[in-house]
Amino acid sequence: MNISNLVGVPLYIKIKESIREDIKKGVLKRGEKLKSEDELAQIFGVSRMTVRQGISDLIDEGLLYRRHGVGTFVAHQHLERDHSRLTNFFEISKRDGIEVNENLLGLEVMPAKPKIAKALDLGEGDLVICLRTLRYTENVPVTIHEAYLPHKLFSQLLQQDLKVETKNLWAFYEKCGYRVKKAVQRLEARQANEEQATILEIEEGAPILFKERTIYADNGAPIEFLYCYNRGDMYSLTVTLNR
Amino acid sequence: MNISNLVGVPLYIKIKESIREDIKKGVLKRGEKLKSEDELAQIFGVSRMTVRQGISDLIDEGLLYRRHGVGTFVAHQHLERDHSRLTNFFEISKRDGIEVNENLLGLEVMPAKPKIAKALDLGEGDLVICLRTLRYTENVPVTIHEAYLPHKLFSQLLQQDLKVETKNLWAFYEKCGYRVKKAVQRLEARQANEEQATILEIEEGAPILFKERTIYADNGAPIEFLYCYNRGDMYSLTVTLNR
Repeated sequence: MNISNLVGVPLYIKIKESIREDIKKGVLKRGEKLKSEDELAQIFGVSRMTVRQGISDLIDEGLLYRRHGVGTFVAHQHLERDHSRLTNFFEISKRDGIEVNENLLGLEVMPAKPKIAKALDLGEGDLVICLRTLRYTENVPVTIHEAYLPHKLFSQLLQQDLKVETKNLWAFYEKCGYRVKKAVQRLEARQANEEQATILEIEEGAPILFKERTIYADNGAPIEFLYCYNRGDMYSLTVTLNR
Repeated sequence: MNISNLVGVPLYIKIKESIREDIKKGVLKRGEKLKSEDELAQIFGVSRMTVRQGISDLIDEGLLYRRHGVGTFVAHQHLERDHSRLTNFFEISKRDGIEVNENLLGLEVMPAKPKIAKALDLGEGDLVICLRTLRYTENVPVTIHEAYLPHKLFSQLLQQDLKVETKNLWAFYEKCGYRVKKAVQRLEARQANEEQATILEIEEGAPILFKERTIYADNGAPIEFLYCYNRGDMYSLTVTLNR
């Protein structure tokens, strides 16, 4: 890292631009841990405070992020999803040229828990199909997608080629006579539990953007209840709101 | 806790309903830590797995939450904000009868950092007013609100009674000739750094629902750039989306 050829520029900006350059050139890779502030101060021949200010700016810009008690890392390209309208993950990713993939984690038929029964307008104990998949972008796991469907409406799913159907559930709903019309969703920041952490390849306790969603069909009936566990370091949502 | 008078009900449901009852009656308070699974197993005279299933259901329902390495807690009433339209925190809270409050953390005039300059359509180094406030609901700190305003548009703010004006910035913008029209916002799950944790009275590393927002006026000009750090255990966003 050569910062000496920028004259008249504050030191912390030189450091910032040097790190930015290293990320651009791939010298520092996405997800890679930065050297400690002390080491960087020594390498650049500046104070630790100066290094810290440079790093802090890059965190503000979203190019780096800090993990509590672990260190500072080069940020992954966040998968930014526009939630101004209800869109389909695979449709949008295809349009935007993002490589996404999905693995089936499991499919289960079970009695609906009270909360899910309520959301889907079912009696407690009525059967639901629980479909769990893991979504990847560029081979990094990003989202655990846990959908609950009323068994009485969608039992056909159990006879389908799941590898095909789970990639476009909405098309499957439509084949069954239900067109996706609107969704009500709730977002929270949470911590990954042990299982989620293992599946998403992050540490237990790492931040999760948690989404809870109910999808309604044209006729007003709830047809899907969903829990989404999105890796905090890989996923963000964008929304345009009007007054 | 007496669970013996419910006959024919699975044990974990009895435990669940007993805990729910204790929360309802205030025997267990919001934010209070639950006894350990082992202790509860002993009290109820059941296995630890049974206790765990009951607790897991209540976590699903949002009545309890788990903090990694710390324990299980009674959830606070989440401050649920509807983000289907752009609304004003204080307007909405008043309408919904939620007691909210705000303290000024600081007001500073500074050169805009690159990212903020870009968002506000300013030259790098143009001045911005940085206004930091802390929002409470029912005396619990929930949100650090860090707004950046172009100094050239809103320098009047520095002469105002800040205690009044900061509670309704949008009205202040309007007095200056700018009506809030729309916002573009981005949401992420992050971890609280040391300063945020201290202010929000949570542990370092605890989950934060991070919001970044640019507000645009009627005439299309960006008039406010905002960072919001919302306590993950106290804040959730609800959105209705149409296909």
